[in-house]
Amino acid sequence: MPALPSQPGAADEPWKTIDRAMADLRALSSVLGLLQWDQETYMPAAGAAARGLQLAAVEGVLHEKLTAPALADALAAAASRPGSEPDPDRAAALRALRRDQARAAAVPADLVRALALAQSRGLGAWKAARAARSFAPFAGALAELISLRREQAAALLPVLAREAAPGSRAPEAYDALLDLHEPGMRVARLEPLFAKLKSWLVPLLDAVTARPPPDRSFLSGPFDTEAQWRLSLELLAAIGFDLEAGRQDRSVHPFSQGMDPGDVRLTTRLDASLPLSALFSTLHEGGHGLYEQRLPAALRETVLCAAASVGLHESQSRLWENLVGRSLPFWRAMLPRAARHFPQLAGVTPERFFRAANHVERSLVRVEADEVSYNLHIVLRFQLELSLLRGTLEVKDLPAAWSERSQELLGLRPPSDLEGVLQDIHWAMGELGYFPTYTIGNLYSATLLAGARRALPDLDAALGRGDLAPLLAWLTANVHSVGRRRDAEEIVRAATGKGLGDEDFREYLEGKYLRGLG
Amino acid sequence: MPALPSQPGAADEPWKTIDRAMADLRALSSVLGLLQWDQETYMPAAGAAARGLQLAAVEGVLHEKLTAPALADALAAAASRPGSEPDPDRAAALRALRRDQARAAAVPADLVRALALAQSRGLGAWKAARAARSFAPFAGALAELISLRREQAAALLPVLAREAAPGSRAPEAYDALLDLHEPGMRVARLEPLFAKLKSWLVPLLDAVTARPPPDRSFLSGPFDTEAQWRLSLELLAAIGFDLEAGRQDRSVHPFSQGMDPGDVRLTTRLDASLPLSALFSTLHEGGHGLYEQRLPAALRETVLCAAASVGLHESQSRLWENLVGRSLPFWRAMLPRAARHFPQLAGVTPERFFRAANHVERSLVRVEADEVSYNLHIVLRFQLELSLLRGTLEVKDLPAAWSERSQELLGLRPPSDLEGVLQDIHWAMGELGYFPTYTIGNLYSATLLAGARRALPDLDAALGRGDLAPLLAWLTANVHSVGRRRDAEEIVRAATGKGLGDEDFREYLEGKYLRGLG
Repeated sequence: MPALPSQPGAADEPWKTIDRAMADLRALSSVLGLLQWDQETYMPAAGAAARGLQLAAVEGVLHEKLTAPALADALAAAASRPGSEPDPDRAAALRALRRDQARAAAVPADLVRALALAQSRGLGAWKAARAARSFAPFAGALAELISLRREQAAALLPVLAREAAPGSRAPEAYDALLDLHEPGMRVARLEPLFAKLKSWLVPLLDAVTARPPPDRSFLSGPFDTEAQWRLSLELLAAIGFDLEAGRQDRSVHPFSQGMDPGDVRLTTRLDASLPLSALFSTLHEGGHGLYEQRLPAALRETVLCAAASVGLHESQSRLWENLVGRSLPFWRAMLPRAARHFPQLAGVTPERFFRAANHVERSLVRVEADEVSYNLHIVLRFQLELSLLRGTLEVKDLPAAWSERSQELLGLRPPSDLEGVLQDIHWAMGELGYFPTYTIGNLYSATLLAGARRALPDLDAALGRGDLAPLLAWLTANVHSVGRRRDAEEIVRAATGKGLGDEDFREYLEGKYLRGLG
Repeated sequence: MPALPSQPGAADEPWKTIDRAMADLRALSSVLGLLQWDQETYMPAAGAAARGLQLAAVEGVLHEKLTAPALADALAAAASRPGSEPDPDRAAALRALRRDQARAAAVPADLVRALALAQSRGLGAWKAARAARSFAPFAGALAELISLRREQAAALLPVLAREAAPGSRAPEAYDALLDLHEPGMRVARLEPLFAKLKSWLVPLLDAVTARPPPDRSFLSGPFDTEAQWRLSLELLAAIGFDLEAGRQDRSVHPFSQGMDPGDVRLTTRLDASLPLSALFSTLHEGGHGLYEQRLPAALRETVLCAAASVGLHESQSRLWENLVGRSLPFWRAMLPRAARHFPQLAGVTPERFFRAANHVERSLVRVEADEVSYNLHIVLRFQLELSLLRGTLEVKDLPAAWSERSQELLGLRPPSDLEGVLQDIHWAMGELGYFPTYTIGNLYSATLLAGARRALPDLDAALGRGDLAPLLAWLTANVHSVGRRRDAEEIVRAATGKGLGDEDFREYLEGKYLRGLG
């Protein structure tokens, strides 16, 4: 039963169609989530062929339902109803559903199929290229993917243009792809912002790496993986993740999958020689999980029971992983608990642990990067993606361009394509316009924490006691429970008075790494 | 890509629609399977609400796709195509799909919804009645379910009548429900068969229970549950279950769920004080699993990659659980392996273990019943269901009728409704016409093993060596790999020369329990 209040009178008819469609779309999206979760956790090896067919079938049904003519008619009828404004949640649901519907309807089914095939080929070619440690075997598949993404963007641009505010800059291809992950975000915002980020992150990285590295000897292990597992579950409970409304399992690559506020699945990876990896990955996925568990459950049969954007989602994972999880107060509270699982931590002070967990170094691989260098990896990818889509960079020249930018941004050149252009899976799937959401997430995380500090004068005292509940409650009230009622930046602005920007993040990083704040 | 050979020429059009529909139906059915499996294994408690919505959404899509007018038109067009007989697999797929389509189309959507709601209410009322140890709180819900099942049967009877051979007896309500689980089976076959079964099972149970019980002292445990788990996986591997194409997990009630020949999920339940429970439940579910893993994978995108009937499925579980798993040769081969996990079995001979595993006793509870009394439990339920649907028994009189029949068939009266009419979940879901499939399975299992013995003169020598491969290969060739190309009884007849009957089963039971055969 839809939780939105009904509209009075005979004109309810379009809403019946819309409510039914929203409920189906939400339920089937969450079914897709279970198929993906199971694929990475419990599916037997020989189940892969059938799983591909199952995913394609459910995706096909989702597309059919979203582009059904009856739904388009109902959306038009609901929008044009004279004299009876829907209530705010209905208006928000209508806006979100119309957004999804317009995008799904704009892209021809043939192109969707061609993209799916090209992604599958791209993944195969990328794996072959990685095995050969050379970009060449991947180049053709990537060129095809970029060409198809350009087609997709061309199909979407009229939709973006229709939605644009009068007088705003005409959208470009990259905008159409970026907007799929970060609704409303545009290159015109990101280009200057990323240039600004680069201008202070490069000197910050220089300054921090010029200092002697912290002592990390106590992390050399081995750290029993069963004990890591138990500690990771304690950390999840400590940050407020409800293990009756979710679970943690193991997988090759950690991820989170929210199917419903009552059913959020996280995974982690355990390695006896990398104790911090599981802990911070659990906190990262746990941050995603808190968002999913605290979405508005009463709206679970509508399109509003979902995160506002990928970047806002990432802000929650980064906030719990880094701003909370790599803070000194957190380890003052948690280190005694960690030491119960790992006797070798008994003599380690919270300060020493904190410094080791915040070791900064120049590195080539994004997923292993620290907080200071991480966004430089994203700037690199954003610049290259933009050039590829604008046609100012050819695929064949990509490895050289990568090496060049890597030197400029990170001060290192990859010894082979494996540590360079082939390191991420995103381009193998033709995902362009996704990488910026990581940096958007980092920036929002700092803006949100700064906003919470202003709103809650006792927040630091609570964090100092290891009491994370006030922070979580503030995030739930201001971010999680909003769901998709507003765009991400609107949510952050309503919560903090500020939109997307780098001031709070700069303040946070410089405070922690230059001024020695915890 | 559908694996069926294409038909030549422009007249292919209906087959495109049919192939697409079959692929979607198969994929979405297997998605339903994953949702159900996950619900019983890993789903967190708070996921129940969303899971209900997900199941309903996928079931809704399956119903939509199966009853789509375009599919009905394509089925009619394919059937009426002049002069070009489809190949045998296409003809079989057409038959099976038309069967499913006719049944789905015959039942009004409102009735389907009313049944789903009544099932949910029935389950709640049954649980309340069990808590009260009294039938009364369940009576109203059961009466409603029976009334809705009568409506469903009435909607289906014209379909059965259309399909009936000329001159055959007009179908009754029970036939319509029975046929949903056991295609082609009719009350006219079962009534005399079950009467015959009763006529020799009752005296057999008298004779066997008159003898002193076997020594079961060595089973008093405790048996370490982790060791039980490891042994159960060894048993699965021993019977040929492929753990790369399936898995075993734990659940409150053991079950099997085949999503694809490459992805078959089994569950078991471990109890330190009931060592045989997990072992025989694993063999039972493993038998189901072997059928699912050996369905024709090349036809996985058609309706033919499925079991022919519930009864034939049960024949496979019963064959591996009882006819193989409770045989003396099996334990000659397996007991040394079991003793490696359980030191307390070290001094037990295979003969002693065999006798203990085949202990026969009068009991009130079907799921704990031995091979001799099991089918008497089914005869009881079949007779009562038939009377309820025919209107010769009223719901309010059901507990008394149960007690009466129980005395007559099993020689015992239940001390309360909990051990009587409330013991099974089936009626709580309004499942009528399902129970007979258990006995059909038992009968087929004996007919199939007898047929395999005739076809493979060396079979007993192989079983005596603990070599189960020849039996499995014969079952795969003659049963599993046929899929849904034929009805269950046709499959058994083609494999053994005999249809549904009790001769082989009687021969097996009397040989084992009266003449002391292993």
